[in-house]
Amino acid sequence: MSLFKKHKETLNKAIDAIHDRAFYAQYPEHPSPKIYGEEADKDGREKFQAGLNKKFEDLLQSDPEAWVGQEESPYLQKPLGILYPSFSASTLISRSKTAWSQWRNVSIDDRAAILVESLEGFKTRFFENAYATMHTTGQGYMMAFQASGPHAADRALEALAMGYKELKRFPENKLWDKPMGKFNIQLNKSWRAVPKGISLVVGCSTFPTWNSVPGLYASLVTGNPCIVKPHPGAILPMAIVVAEIQKVLKENGIDPNVCQLAPDTYDKMITKELAEDPAVKIIDYTGGSAFGSYLEELKGKEVFTEKTGVNSIILDSAIDIDKVAQNLAFSICLYSGQMCTCPQNFFIPEGGIKTPNGTISFEEFAQKLVDNINGLVDNPKAGPFVLGAIQNPNTVAHTEDAKRLGGKVWLQSRSIENPMFKDARTATPVVVEMSTKDKDNFKKELFGPVVLLIKTSNTEESIALASELAENHGAISCGAYTTDETTKHAIMDAMSLAATPVSFNLTGGIYVNQNAGFSDFHVTGGNPSGNASLTNPEYVIKRFTWVGFREPVEE
Amino acid sequence: MSLFKKHKETLNKAIDAIHDRAFYAQYPEHPSPKIYGEEADKDGREKFQAGLNKKFEDLLQSDPEAWVGQEESPYLQKPLGILYPSFSASTLISRSKTAWSQWRNVSIDDRAAILVESLEGFKTRFFENAYATMHTTGQGYMMAFQASGPHAADRALEALAMGYKELKRFPENKLWDKPMGKFNIQLNKSWRAVPKGISLVVGCSTFPTWNSVPGLYASLVTGNPCIVKPHPGAILPMAIVVAEIQKVLKENGIDPNVCQLAPDTYDKMITKELAEDPAVKIIDYTGGSAFGSYLEELKGKEVFTEKTGVNSIILDSAIDIDKVAQNLAFSICLYSGQMCTCPQNFFIPEGGIKTPNGTISFEEFAQKLVDNINGLVDNPKAGPFVLGAIQNPNTVAHTEDAKRLGGKVWLQSRSIENPMFKDARTATPVVVEMSTKDKDNFKKELFGPVVLLIKTSNTEESIALASELAENHGAISCGAYTTDETTKHAIMDAMSLAATPVSFNLTGGIYVNQNAGFSDFHVTGGNPSGNASLTNPEYVIKRFTWVGFREPVEE
Repeated sequence: MSLFKKHKETLNKAIDAIHDRAFYAQYPEHPSPKIYGEEADKDGREKFQAGLNKKFEDLLQSDPEAWVGQEESPYLQKPLGILYPSFSASTLISRSKTAWSQWRNVSIDDRAAILVESLEGFKTRFFENAYATMHTTGQGYMMAFQASGPHAADRALEALAMGYKELKRFPENKLWDKPMGKFNIQLNKSWRAVPKGISLVVGCSTFPTWNSVPGLYASLVTGNPCIVKPHPGAILPMAIVVAEIQKVLKENGIDPNVCQLAPDTYDKMITKELAEDPAVKIIDYTGGSAFGSYLEELKGKEVFTEKTGVNSIILDSAIDIDKVAQNLAFSICLYSGQMCTCPQNFFIPEGGIKTPNGTISFEEFAQKLVDNINGLVDNPKAGPFVLGAIQNPNTVAHTEDAKRLGGKVWLQSRSIENPMFKDARTATPVVVEMSTKDKDNFKKELFGPVVLLIKTSNTEESIALASELAENHGAISCGAYTTDETTKHAIMDAMSLAATPVSFNLTGGIYVNQNAGFSDFHVTGGNPSGNASLTNPEYVIKRFTWVGFREPVEE
Repeated sequence: MSLFKKHKETLNKAIDAIHDRAFYAQYPEHPSPKIYGEEADKDGREKFQAGLNKKFEDLLQSDPEAWVGQEESPYLQKPLGILYPSFSASTLISRSKTAWSQWRNVSIDDRAAILVESLEGFKTRFFENAYATMHTTGQGYMMAFQASGPHAADRALEALAMGYKELKRFPENKLWDKPMGKFNIQLNKSWRAVPKGISLVVGCSTFPTWNSVPGLYASLVTGNPCIVKPHPGAILPMAIVVAEIQKVLKENGIDPNVCQLAPDTYDKMITKELAEDPAVKIIDYTGGSAFGSYLEELKGKEVFTEKTGVNSIILDSAIDIDKVAQNLAFSICLYSGQMCTCPQNFFIPEGGIKTPNGTISFEEFAQKLVDNINGLVDNPKAGPFVLGAIQNPNTVAHTEDAKRLGGKVWLQSRSIENPMFKDARTATPVVVEMSTKDKDNFKKELFGPVVLLIKTSNTEESIALASELAENHGAISCGAYTTDETTKHAIMDAMSLAATPVSFNLTGGIYVNQNAGFSDFHVTGGNPSGNASLTNPEYVIKRFTWVGFREPVEE
């Protein structure tokens, strides 16, 4: 059976799911022994541990110019000691050019099948990857498994399915037969989706696979060779993905350099050299706004960014305010506010939040939120695992500093003990009250577990501020609580013009931070938080060019 | 019957045609009395003539700040004397903002139906528009009718159908139902295609409607209000289109300022002021590369350009060299080389062109081409009508200058007499021989009827030069003549990487200059001749943003 035949149904189901937008997942998110096997977790952990303090030998990139690696575990606060093969930018570019001439001539069906096969290979390493993700990003085990494994694989599949759909959108050949009255003009026409060129995928330290695989698979399926430049602090998760892609390429007689890993070190980063090379035509980037904006302005390239934003919660009215506070406390604590979708600015009217049991004052809600945060943080069976660890030491300092940005400090940030990792770097949320006059301080992203409670005149002002910040400074998520239909529509209108998705009235086990593959567009691309969206059609079609050919039918 | 019901079938047939890419036309290209009515041509001509030296009163834009107009007929070499209502940039922007709040809330179905209805209105003015186009652009009657009327209307319909298709691509609402083991999480989700904002359409002097209506209709159907800034030398054709759109808007209770005309004068152009306004989020432009590149670099805007390129003909081998010379002579003469798809650089191997009857030397082919050009130009029943008139006096001078750019001048440019317009500004093709060493002179567009015959070592060099010029300086079309399959594939490969469409072995009544709506992508967007393509999906989806909303299902 051909590889395409093997994966055709997976591909078609993914294409249907993209257009249906109901719940869909190809890769089960639950790390259950029943699904993944009794020994899967143990095997994955052991494989991760066996790889520490060694060379990572899974890649098929020959003749390394050096071996590098500076990853440190936020749980252990010590180096992982893994070394990766490294190459100069010119070697990477040169190998990429060579591989391209083969890859772009592989049929669309075969490219897609090879990529699905690589995700199946990745699936066998989800547990190993979970430990790799924990010990580079600081994510808790469950998030590290889900976000870096099945959720990432689903988003990769989503991107490649969208690419496949668009590549197949127009016919390969067509007879064009124009009636001219007494005769017809007949042309044989054909079209090609021509890949743009070398694609560079620049990863981040907090979601190394989830934020990198969509661009990687979108570029590969559309025929572009890729260079994956992971964050020096989180290489291993993407090294596993790239190794699986290279394995399948080689099995199918294709140059593994179609997809290269390009690890670098903090002292000698190669991103700029790669990005500025004229042969690099596509760049995918997740990370800080300054570098993202620099990349966006490079000429002659298609650049897809997810940068930073300021996410708002608009509190107007609610049925059950305790459930609201509980839900939001979890959103704040999840991975210690290190998600790009985590809320930061909570806009609360000075007149309070309307409920069926009367109005809840600003102060009452602040206290409820603090109580729920403390309840979660201080629960030894939940807190350490929901919070995870802090990836970057600077984030601890910034979180500490946040208490000086506004007025009353409702909750101080502190560290907690993780029963499994006594040296884990942790920081619990800081909660600070602010007035609308403090806008200079709340208009920017304060990365980490920072919660700002901003007292507004009324909900109209809350909406105006949330949409203005989103439009001018970016926003990736927005949560709103209102029981009033008119207010709800006003929020939808204002936030849609600011290109920010809104989750209304979330309570229970679903959070504003979460974005589901095949259903939620992640980042809209329409405000300063990023110019790309996972996965809308634009995300794939900018990676290739339609070129047509025509010739008269022979008489 | 609702307007949508009336036009639903037209819309669906257009969407099918886009994806089928066989021959399709909604608007008949033949100016036949049987199709358009016995009096249609006469009525159109009289309407055009009655409007000369008067105010153009068809627009529904109130309180003009001035009346302006500087159009001149290239056939009469005198002013048309038509005055159009003019407005400051700030008035135009302010009215556009107001109109937007209404337009973006009109349903997608209604927007599409209103736009199809406006094309039906335009259809009733195709003849008037043909005369308007002749006397602003210098096009011959047949081209002025076809390109500015039915072909333009077809490309407008194509763009609006593509937009409609993409706007309807994802569901408006969906129940997202995620099984969590013991329970399900259910969210009601909805999505909106949010328009980007004010759209500016900047027209050119040679194809005022054909190059402007695709962007205009793409922006309008996706919910953006539009400001149409025609070239000061060719206002009337687009004034007619805008008037028809405004009429239908008003009939449907919508602010006509959804689509405004913004005429200006050579001494006080308002394009930059409009383009740089932060409220302008979309710009469509056809014209010179310098201004196009300036627009492309404006921040915070989606810019769609068609600039200039250098189109090549690669001559390798042919079945019937006389038919080839005949076909190319017509391509060169058509509208005196003022089409963006007109060939300029003819690459001919020094060893000659292979044919079944032996090799045709460079010199023999040059002479055949010259003979065919002269045969056409000197035929009083064909020449003046194929050549038309020269839009811009500078083009005559540049064409004259071209004879000094290379070696042997095979044919001098001259003026010919037009039997219907004795004062017409005309210029016949100049044909100059060049060596590959003259690259500095042939690497740029020489606008007008300029033919450069470039002697290459062999076809490999011809291909390398054609693709290199396309990649670095842009190309909108390429013609190739070869009977060898290997050579054909080498041309396809090289030109596809340079994002340039290729027409092979055209003879008879079809020319490299022609691009058919619903089938040929016009400009690929992948080389410096422009960043946009009529009409690929990218052309429409960059004009709006997908934004999602979600809320738990009430229990």
